Amino acid sequence: MEYYSEKISRLISELASLPGIGAKSAQRLAFYMLDCPKDKTEKLISVIRDAKENVKYCSKCFCLTDKEICPICSNPNRDAKILMVVESTKDMAAYERIGKFNGRYHVLNGVISPMLGIGPSDIKIKELLLRLQQEPVEEVVIATNSSVEGEATAMYISKLLKPAGIKVSRIANGIPVGGDLEYIDEVTLLRALEGRIIL
Amino acid sequence: MEYYSEKISRLISELASLPGIGAKSAQRLAFYMLDCPKDKTEKLISVIRDAKENVKYCSKCFCLTDKEICPICSNPNRDAKILMVVESTKDMAAYERIGKFNGRYHVLNGVISPMLGIGPSDIKIKELLLRLQQEPVEEVVIATNSSVEGEATAMYISKLLKPAGIKVSRIANGIPVGGDLEYIDEVTLLRALEGRIIL
Repeated sequence: MEYYSEKISRLISELASLPGIGAKSAQRLAFYMLDCPKDKTEKLISVIRDAKENVKYCSKCFCLTDKEICPICSNPNRDAKILMVVESTKDMAAYERIGKFNGRYHVLNGVISPMLGIGPSDIKIKELLLRLQQEPVEEVVIATNSSVEGEATAMYISKLLKPAGIKVSRIANGIPVGGDLEYIDEVTLLRALEGRIIL
Repeated sequence: MEYYSEKISRLISELASLPGIGAKSAQRLAFYMLDCPKDKTEKLISVIRDAKENVKYCSKCFCLTDKEICPICSNPNRDAKILMVVESTKDMAAYERIGKFNGRYHVLNGVISPMLGIGPSDIKIKELLLRLQQEPVEEVVIATNSSVEGEATAMYISKLLKPAGIKVSRIANGIPVGGDLEYIDEVTLLRALEGRIIL
């Protein structure tokens, strides 16, 4: 980076500190920003600030939103009897995109990870239990990721809820649609076999 | 994007409008920015503004710099007799990185591209001719890219300078070091053969 003058180097290294932006992309972005009209960078800046200042957690489901209560929680047409537990707002959006789930969500904003020092009290599990007391939920679908931490978190929540007599389910593991068996890992192959559906 | 609230969607789409940032990266960046401490986004904002306000073209070579005259042009130890013509400040930095070129640069800030309506007067060719009258340049090394536009620009400049009796050279085309012949395109193979060096 020392081949650029200081203010350019600082811009490149600041951009390179963002997730998913490597040295080359940072350089490309920096020169784009230097070249583009000032309106463009000022718009980016105002959009970042506006989101940063106004986006908070929904007070019911804890997804990120610019409303006090998010549009899903405040929509009376969404089925309050089925609650999907996800790790993040991004995962909630992934299910919203398919448009086939009409229940509500609960966003944990993390997963239990002893490696990173994240315990059950650091994610929104207490808040989930509180909701289950207040809302007419009949089934909790756990949709945390299939990572070690996601599985452990699913297990933890399941053990917590089952004694309370709530129906708890977990989204299925299996072969991704279009996936080629020969490239799929052993654990997934096994889960797909165990979870086979009688035709 | 309609699965996020408005301020989040606007942030994602503004980030996705930057070069090299696709929909997924934009989403990832947006949630990173929403999650990180405010100091971090404010630092990014101040670095963008600082670069945007203070980075200008060097008045001699037209590279992007935060000085009136860039460190290379103002360095008396750089050889004024050899001038490398490049498309952009990034390309200049690529040659600076290897540290083996001790001449000076001239940054065109573009290439001739009839497709995009960019003619010779839209890039710094007039300024190059002026420099050649004022500075003791003996050789001009044309280091524009090997694209159609880069080649056309090199040809144009070469035809302009040769009648004036200036030595004009072009960086060599050939097999990239470590490159595997079987994967290299035909034009490059031909250029490497034509440009062969007697051992």
